[in-house]
Amino acid sequence: MISIKDSVHDHIEVDGVAEALLDTPIVQRLRRIRQLGTVSYVYPSANHTRFEHSLGVYHLADRALSNLGIEGTNAARIRAAALLHDTGHGPYSHNLEDLVYRQTGRYHDEIDDLLTEGEVADVLRDHGLSPSAVADLVRGDGKYGQLVSGELDVDRMDYLVRDAHHTGVPYGTIDTGRLVRELDFTEGELVLGEGNVQTGESLLLARALMNPTVYSHHVARISKAMLRRAAEGLLRADATDAWELRRMDDDDLRVALRQCGETAEYARRLDTRDLYKRAVWAEYDVVDDELIDADHDTIREYEREVAAEAGVDAEQVVLDVPSRPDIPESTSRVVVNGQVRRLRDQSTLVKAVMRVQKDQWRLGVYAPRDVTEQVGHAAESVLGLDLDALVSDIRGSRTATLDEFEEARDE
Amino acid sequence: MISIKDSVHDHIEVDGVAEALLDTPIVQRLRRIRQLGTVSYVYPSANHTRFEHSLGVYHLADRALSNLGIEGTNAARIRAAALLHDTGHGPYSHNLEDLVYRQTGRYHDEIDDLLTEGEVADVLRDHGLSPSAVADLVRGDGKYGQLVSGELDVDRMDYLVRDAHHTGVPYGTIDTGRLVRELDFTEGELVLGEGNVQTGESLLLARALMNPTVYSHHVARISKAMLRRAAEGLLRADATDAWELRRMDDDDLRVALRQCGETAEYARRLDTRDLYKRAVWAEYDVVDDELIDADHDTIREYEREVAAEAGVDAEQVVLDVPSRPDIPESTSRVVVNGQVRRLRDQSTLVKAVMRVQKDQWRLGVYAPRDVTEQVGHAAESVLGLDLDALVSDIRGSRTATLDEFEEARDE
Amino acid sequence: MISIKDSVHDHIEVDGVAEALLDTPIVQRLRRIRQLGTVSYVYPSANHTRFEHSLGVYHLADRALSNLGIEGTNAARIRAAALLHDTGHGPYSHNLEDLVYRQTGRYHDEIDDLLTEGEVADVLRDHGLSPSAVADLVRGDGKYGQLVSGELDVDRMDYLVRDAHHTGVPYGTIDTGRLVRELDFTEGELVLGEGNVQTGESLLLARALMNPTVYSHHVARISKAMLRRAAEGLLRADATDAWELRRMDDDDLRVALRQCGETAEYARRLDTRDLYKRAVWAEYDVVDDELIDADHDTIREYEREVAAEAGVDAEQVVLDVPSRPDIPESTSRVVVNGQVRRLRDQSTLVKAVMRVQKDQWRLGVYAPRDVTEQVGHAAESVLGLDLDALVSDIRGSRTATLDEFEEARDE
Amino acid sequence: MISIKDSVHDHIEVDGVAEALLDTPIVQRLRRIRQLGTVSYVYPSANHTRFEHSLGVYHLADRALSNLGIEGTNAARIRAAALLHDTGHGPYSHNLEDLVYRQTGRYHDEIDDLLTEGEVADVLRDHGLSPSAVADLVRGDGKYGQLVSGELDVDRMDYLVRDAHHTGVPYGTIDTGRLVRELDFTEGELVLGEGNVQTGESLLLARALMNPTVYSHHVARISKAMLRRAAEGLLRADATDAWELRRMDDDDLRVALRQCGETAEYARRLDTRDLYKRAVWAEYDVVDDELIDADHDTIREYEREVAAEAGVDAEQVVLDVPSRPDIPESTSRVVVNGQVRRLRDQSTLVKAVMRVQKDQWRLGVYAPRDVTEQVGHAAESVLGLDLDALVSDIRGSRTATLDEFEEARDE
Repeated sequence: MISIKDSVHDHIEVDGVAEALLDTPIVQRLRRIRQLGTVSYVYPSANHTRFEHSLGVYHLADRALSNLGIEGTNAARIRAAALLHDTGHGPYSHNLEDLVYRQTGRYHDEIDDLLTEGEVADVLRDHGLSPSAVADLVRGDGKYGQLVSGELDVDRMDYLVRDAHHTGVPYGTIDTGRLVRELDFTEGELVLGEGNVQTGESLLLARALMNPTVYSHHVARISKAMLRRAAEGLLRADATDAWELRRMDDDDLRVALRQCGETAEYARRLDTRDLYKRAVWAEYDVVDDELIDADHDTIREYEREVAAEAGVDAEQVVLDVPSRPDIPESTSRVVVNGQVRRLRDQSTLVKAVMRVQKDQWRLGVYAPRDVTEQVGHAAESVLGLDLDALVSDIRGSRTATLDEFEEARDE
Repeated sequence: MISIKDSVHDHIEVDGVAEALLDTPIVQRLRRIRQLGTVSYVYPSANHTRFEHSLGVYHLADRALSNLGIEGTNAARIRAAALLHDTGHGPYSHNLEDLVYRQTGRYHDEIDDLLTEGEVADVLRDHGLSPSAVADLVRGDGKYGQLVSGELDVDRMDYLVRDAHHTGVPYGTIDTGRLVRELDFTEGELVLGEGNVQTGESLLLARALMNPTVYSHHVARISKAMLRRAAEGLLRADATDAWELRRMDDDDLRVALRQCGETAEYARRLDTRDLYKRAVWAEYDVVDDELIDADHDTIREYEREVAAEAGVDAEQVVLDVPSRPDIPESTSRVVVNGQVRRLRDQSTLVKAVMRVQKDQWRLGVYAPRDVTEQVGHAAESVLGLDLDALVSDIRGSRTATLDEFEEARDE
Repeated sequence: MISIKDSVHDHIEVDGVAEALLDTPIVQRLRRIRQLGTVSYVYPSANHTRFEHSLGVYHLADRALSNLGIEGTNAARIRAAALLHDTGHGPYSHNLEDLVYRQTGRYHDEIDDLLTEGEVADVLRDHGLSPSAVADLVRGDGKYGQLVSGELDVDRMDYLVRDAHHTGVPYGTIDTGRLVRELDFTEGELVLGEGNVQTGESLLLARALMNPTVYSHHVARISKAMLRRAAEGLLRADATDAWELRRMDDDDLRVALRQCGETAEYARRLDTRDLYKRAVWAEYDVVDDELIDADHDTIREYEREVAAEAGVDAEQVVLDVPSRPDIPESTSRVVVNGQVRRLRDQSTLVKAVMRVQKDQWRLGVYAPRDVTEQVGHAAESVLGLDLDALVSDIRGSRTATLDEFEEARDE
Repeated sequence: MISIKDSVHDHIEVDGVAEALLDTPIVQRLRRIRQLGTVSYVYPSANHTRFEHSLGVYHLADRALSNLGIEGTNAARIRAAALLHDTGHGPYSHNLEDLVYRQTGRYHDEIDDLLTEGEVADVLRDHGLSPSAVADLVRGDGKYGQLVSGELDVDRMDYLVRDAHHTGVPYGTIDTGRLVRELDFTEGELVLGEGNVQTGESLLLARALMNPTVYSHHVARISKAMLRRAAEGLLRADATDAWELRRMDDDDLRVALRQCGETAEYARRLDTRDLYKRAVWAEYDVVDDELIDADHDTIREYEREVAAEAGVDAEQVVLDVPSRPDIPESTSRVVVNGQVRRLRDQSTLVKAVMRVQKDQWRLGVYAPRDVTEQVGHAAESVLGLDLDALVSDIRGSRTATLDEFEEARDE
């Protein structure tokens, strides 16, 4: 058994199969994948990695298992899955997921390739565990998969407190001790035990406050969109392919962008924080359903149209359309007076949080600072947006009010 | 200038009139008034006092003034009011307020007596300040009174983080730095500046989560209700009068209860945490409006009736009816797109929090453990409550689900 | 099993004999004994109690036992002893120990009376534990007594972090997780395992820094000396006796001082922080051995002489002579290259800390502010001190340089 | 003015010349230089960067200036120097300093090139500041240079608390508020004001405890030595030159090592934490002075000899000889009884810390795990070390006892 010092959970004791997995290359690679991707452009302290997060998830899983009295092979599988749950991520965490998926047809589930062959599979088998059973848990399948990837999984418990610790934004400070202690299985469902409506609410509210302040801060979204566009440039220039791209670490990607002529300008902008600005920042109800559901090629087509209309280069317009608002934790189950209920049916606050997701949703069009005005007008026209005003007009009434800490000279 | 080390704000620098006020007996007395009254029966670390809280409020006021650019006499008055704002509290903080008010006809506003005569008035005048102007600020009057006692006052900013620090419950961890920095005056109203809907929301959500978990935890309410009944016993026995009672500190009250024969049993119970238990714990919609609005004498009458019906001594029944749900922060103002708006009109979350207050409201009837069942039945009948089940019946469906950390073997 | 939320260790789970002991009056009394006595005159946030500390000690003992693999009766006894270890304290913690001892002949070890009869003894026996065996552990007797009261006991691990948390002084922030994990028994001695010289050093250095900054801050010493003198007044006036005094809680003592005519002036001074000031603050090497070793009656005699010489009332001179410098943790054992060694033989830092104790030692003479000068001169002469200058002469060279955070207008 | 959220100091407000400097490429590059180089192999949370540290140093400088009453051009220069003080660092912080120095003849002071020409120089001049005057401050020259780079500089105040926050090791938790408040200039020297011997001691003790636990942990030293050897390989293979190397960021270096055939094996080992182990770990007094003072070429020669003697490849032996023990803070000045004194003359503890540096000094010889034994014997013989035992012999008596948290399966 080894003991690892963690800035969030203090000492994490790792043994058995987890100890053996720690030294495998796909786990060590997580040391070089930032947990929050481009969020460090907003919160400069947010440089923590998927590696320490994975240790934290392992630790919380371990405590939950101990409270639930789960032992033996099931417990070993869950511990392994907790440590491995993020090994499938590409560089810059979620930032490039869509991109890789479009090219490879694999989304998240290359996890099978990673876990069922090679060194990790050997280690798992050496400890009497079936690699495919562990991969199932990582995907959230089965009763115990809920602990690793579900509405009440230990993944989000770790990332909320860890992201709070490293960004300095206190909203994610949940009571992980209580949450882990109150997890229970009722009729095969992972639930919070009696007396924990509020415990469940606190988890959702933490996410509801962290979301616009941290995860969807507009500067993080802009830099993420630029990074995605740059990575597409790499693929287009045949500097890499999607299969290779998804196994890069953050170092590889940064350097590849610098070394490829077609992406060097993006690299320069990202390296010097010379980011695009918002030309449009539009609320949910002024955006057509068709646009929200548009596929990748259609969005690229819109970008070209907007650029043409504005008289700028196509690379100078980035259209960023988030998926429809959703809040998976709202289906968390909690026991109330002996019956299992969904949190969203039980809690007025949770219902409100679901509505808030829609209020906070924004479509963004980004462009270099000196062309935001013409790009804004062009986008308004091409995308059929009925805006009261452009972002460039002193934060017009359809624009965001979410301008949290910016480190920032942006609109 | 002196520098005082605080466990929450680190160093607090105190000078001018505040430094002179620090040594007055009515400020020093706050060292012996617990901030959270009987909450330490639930959270044993919660022994912080009104004195350190008052220093914290002074500190946040000072920082807000500096950000707002307020100087001179107005600033000095506000600093004095911030330090003095709690000097009117009786022992055990809010626990005895109603009681003292009923007897003295003074509620909160004995503050005039305290500040406009005696040593404090002398100190204020020595520093060129009008005692009655400072008293006005403590009561929240006028433009600047909003900073000391209003929806966005620095009082609640301090107590949320301080109570979180000392209870160990993380929900109160708000971003005081940002809040204080974003305060502004627009058309004479204290508001949060542009881009701070979420900042305002975070303040309300912190209260919404701290409320049932800490401030209104049933064990805190039970012990508070017992303390109030005991204090009434002191008055009835002429062991003290309301004027004297309200100037006691916590030490005085504890010892007075022990020394008076009629209250010795309450003192024993409070000293040994041998508290009453819930016989009834009823939701808002099963309680008649008449009962919610009943005055003190009527409630005492109900208690006697319930006791008679249950065949127990009148001192063994405590009826605890909170005031109607309310959430003052919801009227906080925030600037959105250049216009001042009320937070509750702007925020879906805040509307939800207002509804939640009602969901969380509970009427309680408390009794010694061995008679909760007969007292429960009697209360159900006398008070006309339509309960699905009593608390003694395995947490029946009309009972609370708020049973947070209890230190506790209670129902 | 119950779970108690603690501001330092988060959740503390209490069960078995400890859960049953929690509700006994002598444990509940600890809620009303401040952990740091009069230190809150210097650090206003330091209002934590012996009760929460006792829970913390129980918690660390529990974790140490789990790491050491100790189970069964021995473990249950140690847990009980950890929770009970402070029940023998009088009001205001250590402040009155000497006083009570002189009168009762019992020092610390009235613990036998408390644990071997009455409710606690019954609870212990109900759980199959011998009360006298538990009392032995509290006194630090036997192999396992070292865990509860010894150089490496969990008592000091808890109080260092707890006092740091509540005072805001960071020096006590040790790594309790590592300390508890590295405890081991070698040849019947409690030691820190291989590779932990530094772990041991960190514990001593934490104490070495907390000592002058917190525990022996001159304002804490002055108020403690005044409180002791006041308590003697109570005894002299027959307002109480030593047996009763030692079972008071802080509330009782404060009120008793107010109610007794002979101590009312001390009570007023303590209630309003109108404390004596230093008239003399003398280093170790200018104080005669005879004076350092003087007994209580001799010291009272000196006080009277100084008062007479200075022409002031005897109650206006307080002579405060600490015991000789000592540092018990320095005999802590640690394993180095397979051999058990004493930390002080192994660590240059520890040797230095031992010397520092002497450097920091100070004899104090205290008096009301307006007579410090004449009392200073009188004390210099009566006590035969060869001072370069009095405290009143701009911090003369024989005076302290330890004037940490004062909240303070003192010399 | 902008406000940046920091995980250590909360809000950092940046304006004037500092705000303008923030966006320059040489400052933005610091986002990609880890503060603690290879320490994250021991403490996986330690991924914080020179960028956030530079903001922290700026912040503490700003507070110190405000306390010292320094304004105008001097203050602006100091703020600029604080923000820029680390821009001269190569990749992986201090890890490659010697290497670059040997090749370029520039050590630390390429700072002149960086600050006195190009964009930074333009920004400085635009704000009326002389670039060379700012460069002087960065080098610690002149009265005010002491604030930026001296025994009491704000640099070390920031890194101690920041490294503690991110590693989770509490020893660095100093009281920055007090330190910054107590800085003063006396006769042109930066000192701690009267009453701060302990404040100064706490700074040194924090370093004394962080040093072996964090900064010189053997796993951090091994990985640093491997990285240095790998970087030499890059130069030898002409994959880069020293001038280019020193302006790389961490990403560039990692990828360059992977892309160069001669360093690919080092890259693989570093990427997968397949690190060398200690073959020798020798105390100060068994190492010849000649060896301690050996220059780079001599050390390489020794390595080759040891490898030949052990029959292994030259790349498999790494000899790591730290410079002689030193403790710059010990010359810190503090005012005692009105006179400026050096802390080491005043404090027994500081003298002890100086001796401890020597106790903790270790010469290391590292090799792949499977050849440590033969390399150990060869090194013992070639280097003339009189060891009691090799590291491979159960932690022989001349080996370290400093094996703190390892994340680690190393000797």
